[in-house]
Amino acid sequence: MARRARRKAEETRQDVLDMAESVFRENGFSGTTIADIASALDMSPANVFKHFRSKTALAEAIAERHVETLVGTLEGIDTSLPTLERLGHFVRRLMESHLRSLRQSPCLFEIVLMTSGNEMACGRRYKELLESRFVDMVRLGADEGVYFCEDVEKTARCISACFACVLHPVFLARYKADELRTRCDEVIEFVNRSLTNPLAR
Amino acid sequence: MARRARRKAEETRQDVLDMAESVFRENGFSGTTIADIASALDMSPANVFKHFRSKTALAEAIAERHVETLVGTLEGIDTSLPTLERLGHFVRRLMESHLRSLRQSPCLFEIVLMTSGNEMACGRRYKELLESRFVDMVRLGADEGVYFCEDVEKTARCISACFACVLHPVFLARYKADELRTRCDEVIEFVNRSLTNPLAR
Repeated sequence: MARRARRKAEETRQDVLDMAESVFRENGFSGTTIADIASALDMSPANVFKHFRSKTALAEAIAERHVETLVGTLEGIDTSLPTLERLGHFVRRLMESHLRSLRQSPCLFEIVLMTSGNEMACGRRYKELLESRFVDMVRLGADEGVYFCEDVEKTARCISACFACVLHPVFLARYKADELRTRCDEVIEFVNRSLTNPLAR
Repeated sequence: MARRARRKAEETRQDVLDMAESVFRENGFSGTTIADIASALDMSPANVFKHFRSKTALAEAIAERHVETLVGTLEGIDTSLPTLERLGHFVRRLMESHLRSLRQSPCLFEIVLMTSGNEMACGRRYKELLESRFVDMVRLGADEGVYFCEDVEKTARCISACFACVLHPVFLARYKADELRTRCDEVIEFVNRSLTNPLAR
């Protein structure tokens, strides 16, 4: 019985999140109150508050769910590609997938933007996973004799930092897609140039 | 007479900006109304509105003035340093000066952050000036035979993009100073590695 109650609570929580997302999408984040969401669910506001103590808590849960989806779509590296094309292929696809979700749901982005300042466990997880992809790429490229690098982890951190200008929600939301694409291509070339420097200590 | 009236209006505008900045600093940006600023100035709100149509217009004017100050402090490059130390010296100093103004006046940062999404003429001017410093550094380094680069402008854009992760207000406001310093040092090394790649096309 306790298990069933827990499952029921979890289901209600997901229902609240789904409805909140759709009401936010309709009216924008700032134009929505907990009462609006409760009324759309035919629930009392008190009942919604039982699951989420504030609109911010609700926003964080939505952002978290969204980042989990992103983590799920973060592909492994395509080893069939030539070494020098792998990084660009990966970053371009990732940026395009972010741009798509921004177009489909600007309010979701507003929420991620708002919460991305807070120390969210899921945000850290995403960053770590992203860096681990770069670790894989750098290591493979070095094994193939194309990349030169002494400290793989540090190099992966640098790659991730250099691509923040086209992958971080703040830049995705503020620049035009064409500008981001040009910048992305230029930075890919610049980063590859660093990775292929044979004189690297 | 007309000139005197214009000068008077400009003086009043500056007085309003000074007072607004100090009231924002005291009560935070969101906790301040135009009426608060007017009352601190012993003016009517209508008189303040004559100079700034909204709190956002006021915030933009403050951000603009702040960016103009930044532009003024953006030093030329130090040619007495060895080629490979110039870039790091320049970026580190710039980051530290941003961190100082963040510490001194967090509310000013909140305002810059809020307005940095809008297309501000002064923001673009700052970015252009910053990139022109990178152009100077790359060109000089290439003349000295240390940097290898074909397209100086494009390379400067890449350098600027790679350092956004430690110079853009969003990152400055959201990460700890120590984390930013480590990242800055790592990215400087990584960028120099790209610039010194002799195989660069």
